[in-house]
Amino acid sequence: MNISAIKSGASINATFLVGEAKIAEAKNGNEYLRAILRDKTGDSILAFYFSAPPEILAMNFTGKTVDITAKVDEYQGSVNLKLNSIHPAVEQWDVTDSLPKAEAPVGEMLGELDEYVTGIEDPEVAAVIRAVLEDPVVAGNLERWPAAKSRHHAVVGGLLQHTLELLKLADVVCDLYPEIDRDLLVAGCIVHDIGKIIELGVGAGFQYTAEGVMVGHIVLGDEMVARACCAVDCSTETTMRLRHMVLSHHGEKEWGAPVVPSTAEAMALHHLDQVSSQVRQAINAVERSAKRPDQSGAGSWDRQWSRNWFVGKRGRDGSADSD
Amino acid sequence: MNISAIKSGASINATFLVGEAKIAEAKNGNEYLRAILRDKTGDSILAFYFSAPPEILAMNFTGKTVDITAKVDEYQGSVNLKLNSIHPAVEQWDVTDSLPKAEAPVGEMLGELDEYVTGIEDPEVAAVIRAVLEDPVVAGNLERWPAAKSRHHAVVGGLLQHTLELLKLADVVCDLYPEIDRDLLVAGCIVHDIGKIIELGVGAGFQYTAEGVMVGHIVLGDEMVARACCAVDCSTETTMRLRHMVLSHHGEKEWGAPVVPSTAEAMALHHLDQVSSQVRQAINAVERSAKRPDQSGAGSWDRQWSRNWFVGKRGRDGSADSD
Amino acid sequence: MNISAIKSGASINATFLVGEAKIAEAKNGNEYLRAILRDKTGDSILAFYFSAPPEILAMNFTGKTVDITAKVDEYQGSVNLKLNSIHPAVEQWDVTDSLPKAEAPVGEMLGELDEYVTGIEDPEVAAVIRAVLEDPVVAGNLERWPAAKSRHHAVVGGLLQHTLELLKLADVVCDLYPEIDRDLLVAGCIVHDIGKIIELGVGAGFQYTAEGVMVGHIVLGDEMVARACCAVDCSTETTMRLRHMVLSHHGEKEWGAPVVPSTAEAMALHHLDQVSSQVRQAINAVERSAKRPDQSGAGSWDRQWSRNWFVGKRGRDGSADSD
Amino acid sequence: MNISAIKSGASINATFLVGEAKIAEAKNGNEYLRAILRDKTGDSILAFYFSAPPEILAMNFTGKTVDITAKVDEYQGSVNLKLNSIHPAVEQWDVTDSLPKAEAPVGEMLGELDEYVTGIEDPEVAAVIRAVLEDPVVAGNLERWPAAKSRHHAVVGGLLQHTLELLKLADVVCDLYPEIDRDLLVAGCIVHDIGKIIELGVGAGFQYTAEGVMVGHIVLGDEMVARACCAVDCSTETTMRLRHMVLSHHGEKEWGAPVVPSTAEAMALHHLDQVSSQVRQAINAVERSAKRPDQSGAGSWDRQWSRNWFVGKRGRDGSADSD
Amino acid sequence: MNISAIKSGASINATFLVGEAKIAEAKNGNEYLRAILRDKTGDSILAFYFSAPPEILAMNFTGKTVDITAKVDEYQGSVNLKLNSIHPAVEQWDVTDSLPKAEAPVGEMLGELDEYVTGIEDPEVAAVIRAVLEDPVVAGNLERWPAAKSRHHAVVGGLLQHTLELLKLADVVCDLYPEIDRDLLVAGCIVHDIGKIIELGVGAGFQYTAEGVMVGHIVLGDEMVARACCAVDCSTETTMRLRHMVLSHHGEKEWGAPVVPSTAEAMALHHLDQVSSQVRQAINAVERSAKRPDQSGAGSWDRQWSRNWFVGKRGRDGSADSD
Amino acid sequence: MNISAIKSGASINATFLVGEAKIAEAKNGNEYLRAILRDKTGDSILAFYFSAPPEILAMNFTGKTVDITAKVDEYQGSVNLKLNSIHPAVEQWDVTDSLPKAEAPVGEMLGELDEYVTGIEDPEVAAVIRAVLEDPVVAGNLERWPAAKSRHHAVVGGLLQHTLELLKLADVVCDLYPEIDRDLLVAGCIVHDIGKIIELGVGAGFQYTAEGVMVGHIVLGDEMVARACCAVDCSTETTMRLRHMVLSHHGEKEWGAPVVPSTAEAMALHHLDQVSSQVRQAINAVERSAKRPDQSGAGSWDRQWSRNWFVGKRGRDGSADSD
Repeated sequence: MNISAIKSGASINATFLVGEAKIAEAKNGNEYLRAILRDKTGDSILAFYFSAPPEILAMNFTGKTVDITAKVDEYQGSVNLKLNSIHPAVEQWDVTDSLPKAEAPVGEMLGELDEYVTGIEDPEVAAVIRAVLEDPVVAGNLERWPAAKSRHHAVVGGLLQHTLELLKLADVVCDLYPEIDRDLLVAGCIVHDIGKIIELGVGAGFQYTAEGVMVGHIVLGDEMVARACCAVDCSTETTMRLRHMVLSHHGEKEWGAPVVPSTAEAMALHHLDQVSSQVRQAINAVERSAKRPDQSGAGSWDRQWSRNWFVGKRGRDGSADSD
Repeated sequence: MNISAIKSGASINATFLVGEAKIAEAKNGNEYLRAILRDKTGDSILAFYFSAPPEILAMNFTGKTVDITAKVDEYQGSVNLKLNSIHPAVEQWDVTDSLPKAEAPVGEMLGELDEYVTGIEDPEVAAVIRAVLEDPVVAGNLERWPAAKSRHHAVVGGLLQHTLELLKLADVVCDLYPEIDRDLLVAGCIVHDIGKIIELGVGAGFQYTAEGVMVGHIVLGDEMVARACCAVDCSTETTMRLRHMVLSHHGEKEWGAPVVPSTAEAMALHHLDQVSSQVRQAINAVERSAKRPDQSGAGSWDRQWSRNWFVGKRGRDGSADSD
Repeated sequence: MNISAIKSGASINATFLVGEAKIAEAKNGNEYLRAILRDKTGDSILAFYFSAPPEILAMNFTGKTVDITAKVDEYQGSVNLKLNSIHPAVEQWDVTDSLPKAEAPVGEMLGELDEYVTGIEDPEVAAVIRAVLEDPVVAGNLERWPAAKSRHHAVVGGLLQHTLELLKLADVVCDLYPEIDRDLLVAGCIVHDIGKIIELGVGAGFQYTAEGVMVGHIVLGDEMVARACCAVDCSTETTMRLRHMVLSHHGEKEWGAPVVPSTAEAMALHHLDQVSSQVRQAINAVERSAKRPDQSGAGSWDRQWSRNWFVGKRGRDGSADSD
Repeated sequence: MNISAIKSGASINATFLVGEAKIAEAKNGNEYLRAILRDKTGDSILAFYFSAPPEILAMNFTGKTVDITAKVDEYQGSVNLKLNSIHPAVEQWDVTDSLPKAEAPVGEMLGELDEYVTGIEDPEVAAVIRAVLEDPVVAGNLERWPAAKSRHHAVVGGLLQHTLELLKLADVVCDLYPEIDRDLLVAGCIVHDIGKIIELGVGAGFQYTAEGVMVGHIVLGDEMVARACCAVDCSTETTMRLRHMVLSHHGEKEWGAPVVPSTAEAMALHHLDQVSSQVRQAINAVERSAKRPDQSGAGSWDRQWSRNWFVGKRGRDGSADSD
Repeated sequence: MNISAIKSGASINATFLVGEAKIAEAKNGNEYLRAILRDKTGDSILAFYFSAPPEILAMNFTGKTVDITAKVDEYQGSVNLKLNSIHPAVEQWDVTDSLPKAEAPVGEMLGELDEYVTGIEDPEVAAVIRAVLEDPVVAGNLERWPAAKSRHHAVVGGLLQHTLELLKLADVVCDLYPEIDRDLLVAGCIVHDIGKIIELGVGAGFQYTAEGVMVGHIVLGDEMVARACCAVDCSTETTMRLRHMVLSHHGEKEWGAPVVPSTAEAMALHHLDQVSSQVRQAINAVERSAKRPDQSGAGSWDRQWSRNWFVGKRGRDGSADSD
Repeated sequence: MNISAIKSGASINATFLVGEAKIAEAKNGNEYLRAILRDKTGDSILAFYFSAPPEILAMNFTGKTVDITAKVDEYQGSVNLKLNSIHPAVEQWDVTDSLPKAEAPVGEMLGELDEYVTGIEDPEVAAVIRAVLEDPVVAGNLERWPAAKSRHHAVVGGLLQHTLELLKLADVVCDLYPEIDRDLLVAGCIVHDIGKIIELGVGAGFQYTAEGVMVGHIVLGDEMVARACCAVDCSTETTMRLRHMVLSHHGEKEWGAPVVPSTAEAMALHHLDQVSSQVRQAINAVERSAKRPDQSGAGSWDRQWSRNWFVGKRGRDGSADSD
């Protein structure tokens, strides 16, 4: 059963994958089960089991496929489930099948990436990038990984999608500024977030790994690039320029960059990364606000961003109001 | 005589326009004249008149075309002039003839801009933009104005060049994110810095005007857009969306935005503005560093940016070193 | 029934206006109604309807006058209502009747303001201020508007009250510093927050409008002043000085001022605004703390202000302790 | 001879007091004497002795009264002296005679202060304030001290002048906000900067003392108040309230306040201090800018304040331009 | 009964001291009692009384010794109590008996401190320190006080323990840097937090006092040192150096230091204080995280510190994993 | 000739090493040579050649040993040289011979370090540290390198000296906090700044290398540790813990740490690094201030540290004043 087909008020009987389950405590002292359930399309729904028997509370459902019965509830426009039963299903799904996925097909995105790699003219830059992409940690994973835990492009294939967005913006930047070394900027776009493959884990959801907390994707990515440079015997200067782009792509020290951009390509990479991540997040935030607009049209306060997002009519049906 | 033809050690006899002249005092207590001289190509050279007679010190040469005789000196790789005489020339040049100019021809840039205007599909957005461009303050000036006093695109035609850079980046952004309203983003790119036409004055150089200091280009530009919206009877929502892009394009309050971006188009506009202005500045800064590299290759400290810019060999001859 | 007459433990039967109603969800998954009720004096009380029937949860009570029955509860010294029934009243009140109001009578405050306007000696400054006050957006609204959504002077007439506080402080400033141009400072005080009339909406409570979020009261107020200057053909310099005071009155860019104070009058205006808003907020915060003092006399932590407010005995009965 | 009578180009022969003298080195390696000379009115002028004989360079002229001969020079609108000779004068002046002084007569200011002290109704607050003013460190010094080394009210009597400005603003604040305890706020204004009498030294100029650097005026003033409270056996709560006002009057920790304002009186005191110090500084800065306006009317950049101060015509002759 | 002996699932009948009790409200509108109970070892456990009768809710249990009956619950690895009854015990304990205590015996710690005092060679520094330690506020309290309300060394004897940690680190600093004046640094370590004895109150728990909020431990401690210096007639310079260490030990103004370190000893003191307080807090935070590790080994997010603390295996059993 | 033997007023004839030479321009437009000269003890003196002939100005003396003749000048208590001639010496010195050196003999410091290495009990931690120390980049260089370009421990052997200071402080920390893993903290101290060996170059002075600017010592050091861990097949957890200490040792992101301390050992390492670097800098700054005290005893303003350093009498002769 697809989550999008669930209607408020119905009683259902279905199979889902548990993205994350935990025990919470109600104000009255009772414990209950709170779980995120996913269908095979990547859609998710929140479920509560308020009078769960002790043997249920004692189980760890995270990552399990389960058969459930539930009543469908609605709260401020979004539906959730009040569970009556939950049991491990006979047939367990592949956990990543149920994660949300990038819209473009993986094969198509890999094809686009390949064109950019092929377009790199400098043989040593090309060799480094091929070595990174053939690294056993990367090959086969790049197309599955998200670009972030939850903020932006947090979908299977999100890292590849985010990378391609940077590459397409880089094409224009290289046209506008002939002083920019196209091979370096293209290479920087491809590898800038490659450390995310180690920083984040993909299971029934996306989580930080111990390496992610202790080393971080910037240094993990730099390490992968440095290893590739070494493997293909890349010159010192090109090695430094490639590593520098990875290390400085957050732009400012307070945003986690151990060094700040010291080349035009590194500066460009940082700002293209901002365009891709910030515009994507703004689009998502406006969409979330559109689901709960207040009467004044001023949107509701978004604590994370310290602002109201504006929805209006134009944002919903594409046509401006005609007052 | 073109400044690029001046050779160290020569004695010259030439006509230039004085960009800015002032009286300075040497440590020994003597006053001398210090002037920036420009030729008709926009090139400039620094000139000193160390034992200037009192009647010369009493004159205001700024904006004047002058005949000079001088000895050409060289200091750390750049030439300057030690004046022996300076007199107003018989024939005075048009001051803007001697200002640095954008590389692309004005006509070509205006043509490109016109295509973007023509491409706006929403009739009321198109009407607003046309009204702004036909505003007497804008028409005839847009193609002459710089985008900043000195930081980036500080050339005749720089505002138009900067605007076109944003528009070309916006094309990709609209392709990548179909949720973005292309008409609004294109309109925002065109008008985001339009207030610079009032904020800055173009004379023998670029200076802030009193309006620039007291009101600032963000509010001055918003006012021009609001007036145009009013003139073409634009709907309330579209008016707000257009004004909001101008008002929020600096992105954060501490960078001078009275409101922060609350729509996806405003967020995109801010980051595209960053790409255009920051990449251009980084390229300029690396070029300046390349003229005075230190022996370690680490570049010299840039106080304004709090960093060393990296030059290297790749930055100079396009080929990496082969160590 | 006046809210101040409600006693803990009583059962009541009364008519109130609903300032704001929303559906909340208890930890046990049940939905309940949470509403702010107001009487005709502007006092408010919090009310909960825990087992509200579905038809009640489906209604939008905000701004409605309602008949209710309830049990009066007390929690940590403040009373609230547990509703047993709620129904729209036959006779609906004017929503603003129930909003909190400034203490001084409106007529008296308008009279005081008028004296300040009459006292402006420079004819063009006087003309601009009269034009602003006669603007259809302002006339009839100035005396009703609050100075903020909730922080300070958030009462009907609060904007006028706040304005008069600045004017009285300005009198002393002008006496102390003869260099200050009294006409300009008086004018600045009158118009500095005039944009609040568009930024905020007055309904069953005070909310931000879409214009407030997208343009903000600083630019909205500047626009009203600029329009008035234009209408009375005010000189360029005086126009700039008046607009500059509005635009810079938040004092620093990170506090939302698009330009920082560049004249002595603008600097004075900013700091007088601080006195009025901060002292008022401190008085309110100490009063709130006085209702829940801890045993040590150290007050309780105020998260918004990151401090404990001190209450003591002197703060309560006007006499110091005699230990 | 009064400095205001000195004309450019003249040769003079006069007696002045040396505010501060030091040896500087010209770029050519020569040492010269650089001194600030004061007349008896508090006016000062800069003097250079470029070919001073070694015995002159070896002397310490600071604080000495000297006979000089000099040529009067002019540079960018302000005159300075090129010394030909300098010798200790037979009759040495009292150094403070030559310091700049507050405009109002000391006796008048002390009278005004006395009225405020007399107006304090609470007997223990009055006793504390009288004890502070009779402290041997304060009595006889308060009327001579400046309120700061150079930023604002840096004149003999400046501390008293600054204190009276706060008191007059406090009158209005107490009228506006009856919740404010007038006795406490008046007392706070009187003692808030009393520690400056120890922090700063008054000699041939104003300097920081060792206590000023090591303890600071905030804690030094608190100590004087605490001692007075102890001497008059003031109650614990009133003592805390008085000390708290001194300790928190800088308003924020990053501005040097060891505790932030926790009472309404402390909050008011902080903001009144801001009005007095900031408005005075703005007036001074605009006056300095008025002496060197640029052609655009935009003023010249003030590095300390990170802004251009606007001068205009209204700022100079009291009448707006009539364009 | 010792809290460490309580087992999940059991029913108990025991006597504890109530550290802090308050009435909370469940989402369903019911009020319940929430209390921190302590045994005589200083261990504490959270207890809830969900259906407490009105007469219980009306009582103030804080600081009382109580007899309780309860069911032991477990939630995410930590036990808590669901109370069935609570009554004041016949025999009331001394409240400090139940507070957590430093591990080292008080006598031993006092002995160590005494050795440091005896080791001060400069007679006037030694006299000041002895005077501070014999101050009636200090003598008999120093060994009982905590070093903070909750952040670090928040145990009976914690202030002494924290002081000794600084002293032992100071020994090494003095060995490493012979330029450091050992007597001053030792004295600074002993008195740096002495104001905590007034800032914090020790009752059934640790709370801020009114003096703590209004004056703060930095100024309170400085006052005690200044009084001692005065009493023993200490020279001006040594007095300033000792007071300066107390006043500047928070290192930066934004961390509450009214003056920043201006001597090498003050700089050393600040950083030794950081070592002691930060390392202790990090150890505590890792221990707390170890109780609720997530599956990835990345620890759980600590909002106060804005980071995940890493636990791993080495942190738990002393041996690294052998993968 | 040793620089310490140079007397003001003398004419000398000597051989020195040029640490850094550059061409400067006097205000009168003349170019001159400015050089830092070093003797074999590491002492340095500033030298000027004001009328240097063109062939001298055209030479690059940096790193050369030169024979000079000069007049000794004195300026504000420090001597400098006015050169009359400068020529490359026949015998060129080893450039590092003339750099300032750590006080303790290198052999002694290496011996102390070796004891710490030997004291590491965990075999895999010990193996990693030995591998780092035997890395060809490190072996033979560690004892020669400075710990910083100029801020602290900027002497030959400074890195080793700084490392030993941390280790000695770590001994106390391990005694005070048994929860700290001694092997890890000792290892962290040894390797925390090991990347400085690549970040800085040691020639005629200390400069940043290109790798230093582009990658930075934090990541360069992490890379060396990661390589060593890999070489000795260290477990994943220990590898992460060691790398994490290097990566987080600057403590906060804005200070350049790509990750913040997430283990108690990393937190300790950061603060011990602060003690060593800050106390050393404070001692140096007070010593510099002692050479130019002002009359008030308040020291002179140190722009880099935004404070006055206090000198006093105790700071100079070890005895307090007896006023």
